[in-house]
Amino acid sequence: MTDLYDRPGHLARRFQQIAVAIFHAEVAAAGFDLTPVQYAALAEVAVRPGIDQATLAGRIAYDRTTITGVVDRLAQKGFLTRDLSPRDRRARVLMVTKAGEEVLAAIEPAVDAAQRKMLDGLTPEEVGTFLALLKKAINAGNALSRAPLKVG
Amino acid sequence: MTDLYDRPGHLARRFQQIAVAIFHAEVAAAGFDLTPVQYAALAEVAVRPGIDQATLAGRIAYDRTTITGVVDRLAQKGFLTRDLSPRDRRARVLMVTKAGEEVLAAIEPAVDAAQRKMLDGLTPEEVGTFLALLKKAINAGNALSRAPLKVG
Repeated sequence: MTDLYDRPGHLARRFQQIAVAIFHAEVAAAGFDLTPVQYAALAEVAVRPGIDQATLAGRIAYDRTTITGVVDRLAQKGFLTRDLSPRDRRARVLMVTKAGEEVLAAIEPAVDAAQRKMLDGLTPEEVGTFLALLKKAINAGNALSRAPLKVG
Repeated sequence: MTDLYDRPGHLARRFQQIAVAIFHAEVAAAGFDLTPVQYAALAEVAVRPGIDQATLAGRIAYDRTTITGVVDRLAQKGFLTRDLSPRDRRARVLMVTKAGEEVLAAIEPAVDAAQRKMLDGLTPEEVGTFLALLKKAINAGNALSRAPLKVG
């Protein structure tokens, strides 16, 4: 058997753990309290005002149950609003508040710094190769995942 | 701002989601009911009989709280035993049972198939490049992660 530590599944988890830890550290050091999924949801609603929760879940590839909790916390923090949809009374449409816009702008340098730190061990050329191969692997595997990303 | 979907943090999460989904699908199709972390824990105890929970957590890079739940479920399934340590009365030492050894052997083809499927979109040469860069990035980032892997 292949060494457990050389297996793609183990490496995928380690890289994800490191990415989350770096995100938390950079964002906390900058004085903010947003998790990666809260950030992803808020940033997505900012570019798609009026998006509904189910569409948001598909776009950032989280399942609907997770997204409900994430949206609850962002609403409690005053960063977004949930209103009844004018077209579908069962749906809620999401909008970023002024406070949400301000936090997104203010947090951006920390988020960028985190992205750079995640690949600090690679040369710039290696970063390009790595991200291209990672995207290629993800695109091929996307349909196999339980919360496929829906872009369109 | 960089497109959210091109950021390393987003890609790390997508790849991890896909890896977990593929693991679940392959293992379930083969008739087994083991999550990736249960599998990792069981495989690690098999090669280190008598390991204690804290050391196990460090070796497979999960935090201690997660590992406690994982070990509970593996014990309930009859795949491992937890006994008081002869050296430290607060510690529990773990051993794989005969049923645990059997499931590890039987599940191996499904786990291997899952590892291959995770990188199905890449050529064999690309797989080599990708895994080498992924390991390099992880080794650099390991100390920054909240549950660093302790090998030694």
